[in-house]
Amino acid sequence: MTTLAECQARDAADPLALLRDRFALPEGVIYLDGNSLGALPKATAARLAEVVAQEWGRGLVRSWNEADWIEAPRRVGAKIARLIGAGADEVVVTDSTSVNLYKLLHAVLADGRRTLLTEPGNFPTDQYIAQGLAAGLPGVRYATAPRGEIVAAAGPDTAVLLTHVHYKSGERYPMAEIETAVRARGGVVVWDLSHSVGAVPLDLAAAGAELAVGCGYKYLNGGPGAPAFLYVARGWQERLVSPLAGWLGHAAPFAFADAYEPAPGIDRFQCGTPPILSLAALECGVELMLQADRAALYAKGQALCELFIERIDAQCPQLKLVTPRDPARRGSHVSYRHPHAYPVTQALIARGVIGDFREPDVIRFGFAPLYNSFADAWRAAEVVAEVLADGVWDDLSEAARARVT
Amino acid sequence: MTTLAECQARDAADPLALLRDRFALPEGVIYLDGNSLGALPKATAARLAEVVAQEWGRGLVRSWNEADWIEAPRRVGAKIARLIGAGADEVVVTDSTSVNLYKLLHAVLADGRRTLLTEPGNFPTDQYIAQGLAAGLPGVRYATAPRGEIVAAAGPDTAVLLTHVHYKSGERYPMAEIETAVRARGGVVVWDLSHSVGAVPLDLAAAGAELAVGCGYKYLNGGPGAPAFLYVARGWQERLVSPLAGWLGHAAPFAFADAYEPAPGIDRFQCGTPPILSLAALECGVELMLQADRAALYAKGQALCELFIERIDAQCPQLKLVTPRDPARRGSHVSYRHPHAYPVTQALIARGVIGDFREPDVIRFGFAPLYNSFADAWRAAEVVAEVLADGVWDDLSEAARARVT
Repeated sequence: MTTLAECQARDAADPLALLRDRFALPEGVIYLDGNSLGALPKATAARLAEVVAQEWGRGLVRSWNEADWIEAPRRVGAKIARLIGAGADEVVVTDSTSVNLYKLLHAVLADGRRTLLTEPGNFPTDQYIAQGLAAGLPGVRYATAPRGEIVAAAGPDTAVLLTHVHYKSGERYPMAEIETAVRARGGVVVWDLSHSVGAVPLDLAAAGAELAVGCGYKYLNGGPGAPAFLYVARGWQERLVSPLAGWLGHAAPFAFADAYEPAPGIDRFQCGTPPILSLAALECGVELMLQADRAALYAKGQALCELFIERIDAQCPQLKLVTPRDPARRGSHVSYRHPHAYPVTQALIARGVIGDFREPDVIRFGFAPLYNSFADAWRAAEVVAEVLADGVWDDLSEAARARVT
Repeated sequence: MTTLAECQARDAADPLALLRDRFALPEGVIYLDGNSLGALPKATAARLAEVVAQEWGRGLVRSWNEADWIEAPRRVGAKIARLIGAGADEVVVTDSTSVNLYKLLHAVLADGRRTLLTEPGNFPTDQYIAQGLAAGLPGVRYATAPRGEIVAAAGPDTAVLLTHVHYKSGERYPMAEIETAVRARGGVVVWDLSHSVGAVPLDLAAAGAELAVGCGYKYLNGGPGAPAFLYVARGWQERLVSPLAGWLGHAAPFAFADAYEPAPGIDRFQCGTPPILSLAALECGVELMLQADRAALYAKGQALCELFIERIDAQCPQLKLVTPRDPARRGSHVSYRHPHAYPVTQALIARGVIGDFREPDVIRFGFAPLYNSFADAWRAAEVVAEVLADGVWDDLSEAARARVT
């Protein structure tokens, strides 16, 4: 059985451990919720202060050119592209994950498809956006199929919407395999990378992935509500038109012409004026991730998950593992079922171990290899075991459960 | 003729002049582009630093509850409501102006209309979003009519999209009059308040306005790309459904249910996770405006425009006024035509007078009464006269014109 000393030795020998110091983590907290909101990179505060005081305050409207604000969606998109195996001209940062899902799903429907297919239990916004689209477009059908039957349910009229790593179970789809199978049936896949970007290896080009969106505020550490990104493989860019024909998706936005003409390439998926403050924060998070040896980073994430599972296996038989044990089949968070999952999560937070609760009975523990250590994983498991042994959650009201967790 | 000394005396006697000191304006600049990007309130830098270091850095994911991040779209919406004569439960801050236009236009079409009507020359994103909608929805027609004919062109199947104050000419629609006339014909109006909120008196309830969107980064001083707001009169809220059925527009977002059910009230127009950093900056700008005597503020804006027009009339016969002379018919910016508008604008910026250029031949000067002074208006007119007399723009290349201005 692993000891704390062994974990500390592993941290001491880990070249990635230096990166933890680049984050402003509070004392007395083991933060295992980077899969919901990533931690604050120390560089972000200074950069944001500079953008505010210098670029906005002193530069004012001139900064659209002089500080290259207008390029930020493409510039940060090109950096994210390096994390997901995409070309620099295939990714743009814009809007939220939800809005970007709408753009891509609408565009592939307009391209000649009639069915939006996903799995029940997919992240709510993915389901809701698809349902909203189907409700608003005559002849479009919203359908679901369980994970194991999704490929068989896809046909030539189908856009399949899949979240690469499941937000609750942590289960990961084999992307290349699914792509090949769905394409063989004439369908197309739109990937939601929200729980995988920065957490697991991604090579969209190698996997043959054509369309994707992803979140900026989880493993990319872009800050609460950071803008999202959108990926459209080069060959699809001229074929798709965004339903949200905002002025920054125009071929010549500053010509102020009356007629919409989509920009060539990925730019057509921009919409309104980009959120510069949020983009600056996201860029800091992405920059930090680009500095890491990413193969080592993802391997460490899996090793952290593995250590945690091992420690929970050994100490907490009350917890039922939801996440696959095979590292190749999961993301970088580990989830357990417990009949009192909500108050247990609250009791853990009160003791400084921040994971989160997901309805109806799941506790999630996210391992962000940029800042989580082996000692974090070891200690967190100890606290979980203590809380379960104490049964302290019985004292906690479930009244607050209706609020965000 | 007004003298600089008279302007300075007017500033000295102006109780609003104290507010100028609440902005971090750079030395040597007369900033007349608050109609494009508002100036930086001094309070914003400190507030944003607190949100970053304390709420995000220390509070981490707990801040969704503990720092009330989840309420920010409603809370800031309720503050903006006070600026536009709306109920606190009728406004929410979310997404961009373009995305919000899409939501409202789509929703009124789904409510049984087939025609989107606007004026040629309306702000591009308004036209483009409407064109995109019409292109994507069978049976929906995009139509334009000149300003004077727009009411006559509206019928029972029509949603009329009007920008209250025109981005280029500064012309202001008589809102109550248009509302009454369009409603009498069975139509509905969606107002874009981007160039009026914070600049001119707005009382949506009194005007009978039912639907509107507006921008956070112009006169509200919310920062570059600040999130936008959306107004839906109470009686319309349950009748309309957002096409962008994101999870935060759900009746119970944290139940993580599979089926979309729109939230009651204005919340259904939220979509993805709110951009907390940008929202915090916007809230600072809105707070500052709420501290001013707004009747006095708007009157001052008009007085600044009037002074500037008087001084240009007296000194610059080469400039052709585009903006109405009647204060009741304009916003808080003044626009002129000049055959060399682009290089003249650049020459002005080089001399510290920041206005902006709009294709093909317009120079705009925005007067933000929170921070512009009578001396600003007087001096700016002097610099305009000098630049036109010198003809220095002839030396400037027009090559950069393709970029953002």
